[in-house]
Amino acid sequence: MNNVGGLIMDKPQIGVIGMAVMGKNLALNIESRGYTVALYNRTGSKTEKVVADHPDKHLVPSYSIKDFVNSLETPRRIIIMVKAGAPTDGMIKQLLPHLTKGDVLIDGGNTFFEDTVRRNAELDQSGINFIGMGVSGGEKGALEGPSLMPGGQKAAYDLVAPILEKISAKAEDGTPCVTYIGPDGAGHYVKMVHNGIEYGDMELISESYNLLRNVLKLNVEEIADIFKEWNKSELDSYLMSITADILTRKDDEGTDRPIVDVILDRAGNKGTGKWSSQSALELGVPQSLITESVYARYISALKDERVAANKVLGGPKLSELNIDKKEFVEKIRQALYFSKIMSYAQGFEQLRVASEHYDWNLKYGDLAMIWREGCIIRAQFLQKITDAFNKDKALSNLMLDPYFKDITDKYQAAVRDVAALAIKAGVAVPGFTAAITYFDQYRSEVLPANIIQAQRDYFGAHTYERTDKEGTYHYEWYHEE
Amino acid sequence: MNNVGGLIMDKPQIGVIGMAVMGKNLALNIESRGYTVALYNRTGSKTEKVVADHPDKHLVPSYSIKDFVNSLETPRRIIIMVKAGAPTDGMIKQLLPHLTKGDVLIDGGNTFFEDTVRRNAELDQSGINFIGMGVSGGEKGALEGPSLMPGGQKAAYDLVAPILEKISAKAEDGTPCVTYIGPDGAGHYVKMVHNGIEYGDMELISESYNLLRNVLKLNVEEIADIFKEWNKSELDSYLMSITADILTRKDDEGTDRPIVDVILDRAGNKGTGKWSSQSALELGVPQSLITESVYARYISALKDERVAANKVLGGPKLSELNIDKKEFVEKIRQALYFSKIMSYAQGFEQLRVASEHYDWNLKYGDLAMIWREGCIIRAQFLQKITDAFNKDKALSNLMLDPYFKDITDKYQAAVRDVAALAIKAGVAVPGFTAAITYFDQYRSEVLPANIIQAQRDYFGAHTYERTDKEGTYHYEWYHEE
Repeated sequence: MNNVGGLIMDKPQIGVIGMAVMGKNLALNIESRGYTVALYNRTGSKTEKVVADHPDKHLVPSYSIKDFVNSLETPRRIIIMVKAGAPTDGMIKQLLPHLTKGDVLIDGGNTFFEDTVRRNAELDQSGINFIGMGVSGGEKGALEGPSLMPGGQKAAYDLVAPILEKISAKAEDGTPCVTYIGPDGAGHYVKMVHNGIEYGDMELISESYNLLRNVLKLNVEEIADIFKEWNKSELDSYLMSITADILTRKDDEGTDRPIVDVILDRAGNKGTGKWSSQSALELGVPQSLITESVYARYISALKDERVAANKVLGGPKLSELNIDKKEFVEKIRQALYFSKIMSYAQGFEQLRVASEHYDWNLKYGDLAMIWREGCIIRAQFLQKITDAFNKDKALSNLMLDPYFKDITDKYQAAVRDVAALAIKAGVAVPGFTAAITYFDQYRSEVLPANIIQAQRDYFGAHTYERTDKEGTYHYEWYHEE
Repeated sequence: MNNVGGLIMDKPQIGVIGMAVMGKNLALNIESRGYTVALYNRTGSKTEKVVADHPDKHLVPSYSIKDFVNSLETPRRIIIMVKAGAPTDGMIKQLLPHLTKGDVLIDGGNTFFEDTVRRNAELDQSGINFIGMGVSGGEKGALEGPSLMPGGQKAAYDLVAPILEKISAKAEDGTPCVTYIGPDGAGHYVKMVHNGIEYGDMELISESYNLLRNVLKLNVEEIADIFKEWNKSELDSYLMSITADILTRKDDEGTDRPIVDVILDRAGNKGTGKWSSQSALELGVPQSLITESVYARYISALKDERVAANKVLGGPKLSELNIDKKEFVEKIRQALYFSKIMSYAQGFEQLRVASEHYDWNLKYGDLAMIWREGCIIRAQFLQKITDAFNKDKALSNLMLDPYFKDITDKYQAAVRDVAALAIKAGVAVPGFTAAITYFDQYRSEVLPANIIQAQRDYFGAHTYERTDKEGTYHYEWYHEE
């Protein structure tokens, strides 16, 4: 029993290390579910402040690692919320001498999955359990209920599952947005692809906005209304709703303009989209939509170069567009949904290949299920993905599921029209074009890769396979002896 | 002096390790320029065979590393042509005890540049020089004159430069296709991007073929003739010429069909395009065309999935195309040249950022110059790139050079028409769409990244910059205290 600031408390059932906003909010979330939570931060004053700001909460501060570890119930449950990379390794190193077999460390940071694989293996040798847990939902999610993607030893997961289920977001049907993802790096890998998908969703919304604003010449209020309408359709999602909200907001820095018009068109990133693309490249998975979304952010960052290039490089001179605006708005909506489906098809394809490669046995339907609430990509349509994998666990590509196939039938004409018009209008839509390109590639019985393989055999004797019989062949291009 | 098989020889001025086809051909190339070459291969019988097959050549075989090293003139010059990765490390480890300060090791393998950086630093501690050298041109190039991209200690380069200049390809004006690229991994990095560009060139040719064959419905002979014509235009290049040649060839396995029609549409890869994309992602450089080319090969590899998907997923039903075929052929030619320029613009952008990041001081104009002959991407238009960088060493993007800007003015309408038609016809052209998309992004003063940054600030408090004043800001989206 502890007595802190007059409150009588149980020995903490769990501890949180790192009192930056995500760690603090996660600790407060856990406490709010009836737990006593131990706190530690490298700089003690931060811990003091959290406790002082929440005097009536069951929070037990420590100012040394040793005290922190000793304050916990055993087997100990410790969530590390410090910067990914070296700081996380440093914290584990400090903790290790004080831990005992069976304790559970949980890294809730934005960690590269290969680091998690390594740490899990290293700690496992000392009998320490290590869970790499993706946490999605931002600061608000951490406080009120995030979507959680924990990977590591299954037995360790079971030790923390009751807490994780309580603190996680709940779907409409009451299901907690957490499940055991798989061994070692599976949780952080899934979170990484989740974030890649998030990049894609955001890119597609921004492209839709761009077309509405700069091709259809609608104003910000009109676009806000359109996005609100779309959010009542299949596109119902957190990102759609916040974008509609964003478009209604006025600048709070003195101009009377819509806030979007004073925000500089330079998008940052914290690397998970990049990792997702790099991993797709490594695993041989076509994942063009997320990658184009990452590249779009990179190009956005070249603001000065773009401004300079704009003065030099001309674009098309489009005469008055001969289109029905209302009809075209609906086409953009369909293009957005179609493209979103392609992005998820690529993302789940990547998860499938990764699961096989790393032997993780991922449950694809469960992943879509725990993304229904709490996380940034939460959306109504994720239920359709869960349904698809529940119906057919061996589904090789999402777009082959009857529901999604039907959408591709109905909406592909729209995305073709939208992409073609955008290209002719000189407005870049990398997400939309990646989507229709992937669709057309994937449904092509024959691609012109025969030309590429012929070239490879010609200059590098890389051999070729044949359409009419098995085996590998080399053509005598040079007729040499 | 050596006496081998009756020939009186000098002490070898250089040695080659690895008697697979690339190593053997490089050794024969060097010997043909008047040098005596020491040979070594792990399996001695391979070395024996090379010597036996060329009894009148100045080749000195050794059957132990020690004998091989001792047979050489000092400072020793040794080219390692073994498999990249662990085999190269293993060979260096075997060599090291026999080397003396000032010796020069050259890795001519297909090595990842970070390995070269590491090996250069490690060997430098023992006073051993290490050059990582990209070798392009395939087997034929290695034998007759490759394009060489050596990076490492400048003084070490000077020790081998006379030999490299003799064995390399020569441009029309007689310039050897080799130059000192830069420190440590610079040579292998440049070779990697060269290969990425090669992926792009091959992809764009295959897309042109696809449109001619499957949209314009031309036959293989007609396309061969068109490619021959194009090869007399700005598109004059090795890859264009071999593709025209490929299209004239009949199957040599008994069918009477064009060889391209029996080659399976599944393109392999050896990883350099992937590395190039992964590095671009790491460095924050938009490099969509090469990446789409890598993904196109990945999708091509999913042959069985594509055949199955083709039965499920429908495409557009295009009525008779209302286009002038001859005019459209010319549009495809223009689209191909335009897209090629975008690909090189991205490639050189990547080289620029890498050069700054790794402190390599790359000479961009020289790179295009040494690619004019010997290598797979050799092409007439590389002279235009050299000219552009000679005129303006600080050129921030190739397309801002007057010659290339002029092409974008003239040809952008064609690539827009071609990409739009392909998308409507259901034929994937990832290279062409990546090209026009990049062009439109790069010349956009304003991109819709303001929406993305607003979303990031909304859900993650990632802050935003403003269009009207300096600094970083956070909007109070939730109106919280």
